[in-house]
Amino acid sequence: MSLVTVGTVAFDSIETPFGKAERVVGGAATYISLAASYFTKDINLVSIVGDDFPDEELKYMRKRGINLDGLDIKAGKKSFFWAGRYHENMNSRDTLDTQLNVLADFNPKLPDSYRNAKYLMLGNLTPEIQMKVIRQMKKRPKLIVMDTMNFWMDVAMDALKKTIKKVDVLTINDEEARQLSGEYSLVKAAKAIHKMGPEFLVIKKGEHGALLFKGDKIFFAPALPLAQVFDPTGAGDTFAGGFIGYLAKTNNLSFENMKRAVIYGSAMASFCVEEFSIERLKGLRASEIKKRLKRFVNIVNFDAQL
Amino acid sequence: MSLVTVGTVAFDSIETPFGKAERVVGGAATYISLAASYFTKDINLVSIVGDDFPDEELKYMRKRGINLDGLDIKAGKKSFFWAGRYHENMNSRDTLDTQLNVLADFNPKLPDSYRNAKYLMLGNLTPEIQMKVIRQMKKRPKLIVMDTMNFWMDVAMDALKKTIKKVDVLTINDEEARQLSGEYSLVKAAKAIHKMGPEFLVIKKGEHGALLFKGDKIFFAPALPLAQVFDPTGAGDTFAGGFIGYLAKTNNLSFENMKRAVIYGSAMASFCVEEFSIERLKGLRASEIKKRLKRFVNIVNFDAQL
Repeated sequence: MSLVTVGTVAFDSIETPFGKAERVVGGAATYISLAASYFTKDINLVSIVGDDFPDEELKYMRKRGINLDGLDIKAGKKSFFWAGRYHENMNSRDTLDTQLNVLADFNPKLPDSYRNAKYLMLGNLTPEIQMKVIRQMKKRPKLIVMDTMNFWMDVAMDALKKTIKKVDVLTINDEEARQLSGEYSLVKAAKAIHKMGPEFLVIKKGEHGALLFKGDKIFFAPALPLAQVFDPTGAGDTFAGGFIGYLAKTNNLSFENMKRAVIYGSAMASFCVEEFSIERLKGLRASEIKKRLKRFVNIVNFDAQL
Repeated sequence: MSLVTVGTVAFDSIETPFGKAERVVGGAATYISLAASYFTKDINLVSIVGDDFPDEELKYMRKRGINLDGLDIKAGKKSFFWAGRYHENMNSRDTLDTQLNVLADFNPKLPDSYRNAKYLMLGNLTPEIQMKVIRQMKKRPKLIVMDTMNFWMDVAMDALKKTIKKVDVLTINDEEARQLSGEYSLVKAAKAIHKMGPEFLVIKKGEHGALLFKGDKIFFAPALPLAQVFDPTGAGDTFAGGFIGYLAKTNNLSFENMKRAVIYGSAMASFCVEEFSIERLKGLRASEIKKRLKRFVNIVNFDAQL
């Protein structure tokens, strides 16, 4: 099924305890689209870059079946840039630099061919821009998934709630779920967030896995315990890309299939963190993904003998 | 199978965001033994109290099949007392008061009838006392499980490592696993801890579940997402009690059965946190425990369709 992905396409400079990467490819829409490309081929990206963004990276995305008609390339301008340093524990990071550049003027216009897409993935952006994209769809997509972050809760809660009201799945982390709902218990937080609009809530907990809520139904997906987490940048976006990519491929929104989508998202994220930037997401083989899925099955599988 | 449980039997005063409980029954051996009593009946407790400890509480333990021949009741002395206050998020707490009382002179002497037990559960205590108990066993038990905490890593690392060397299963939390091993990755931490002696490692992660490691095998057990966590005191001990109680009942140390033991431990802990002190652990019905097990199966169960 056709999928529209929206978010940044950008450069990151990253420091982790394992090394440094200068001005490497990043951005929510990059990670989302690449991860999704392992499941479905009709992917239509919406973003903005400057003319400093490398041609060969765009070529690679096209090669993976990602349509870039909705990518606005601004001559003489620079792409969004973020620099950050991860702490020893990799769970927290400091932002060292943020240069909005072209993102300051981002006013997405969806190509006509995008406007009938069945699946829409809104990567983290200002909620007003996410809303603008929703409004440009000719027909309400079958599924809208929205990612966001605490920053918008701090500075734009009203606009954020308006956009959240329009989506089917919200993906946030546990602290954000608590901040958004004012509830400490994630069970209560999920109930409060369901009332804001989304039928499904995915709470991403990094190394602790992810939770999927739909009404009273809960699914707890593990994270794969890894010997080495090299660079967590993009893990949440990669999760979202695997999640919606699998749903767009299977076109089945039952809770059972949503569970599988969460596991596929987790599997893709487990690859992402193994190298800097999108390196590990390039050229993955279907057999590698399948093998990783088996590891997820193995680590949670038990026979309760009830 | 016969089970010896060692640890404190004590009073706690607890403040949580939901209320206060003054001088209620607590202690690692209390929680461990009560949780285990839902699985096996030959439970033999080793601990020390003052004559201020209520008779009816001891009577209740005996009623649940817990042999108290190894409980030293010191006339004219006071029981161990701990007071603490949980923060809003329930994940951290401040100690307000610690009165060692009888615990200062605890020098456990195992009754003869205890010394052939097949299962030994060492609750959190000074590692030297845990070692003393191991040495008093006539025959090396089939399984020794040891719980400990960061405090002993700070003040008695050498003694702690000597005791750890003697046990089969170590149960600690994620931060403690990192402190003990010097490794941030839990996969690497587990490898390092295996080398210290224990064949099995259980890493308790509270609301994020628990991990079981044996060599290269990993099992990820969820925690049940709860609408309300009332009082987390004793959850780790209750986990350990359910874990070893189930193993003593089934007398099967295969990895498959260990997984089930982790799930039973998690289920018992999920009851513990629903009320203050041991209240929720009193008078549980087998059907309630079975029902909770089913909830664990449901929240992790998925069909990967590989």
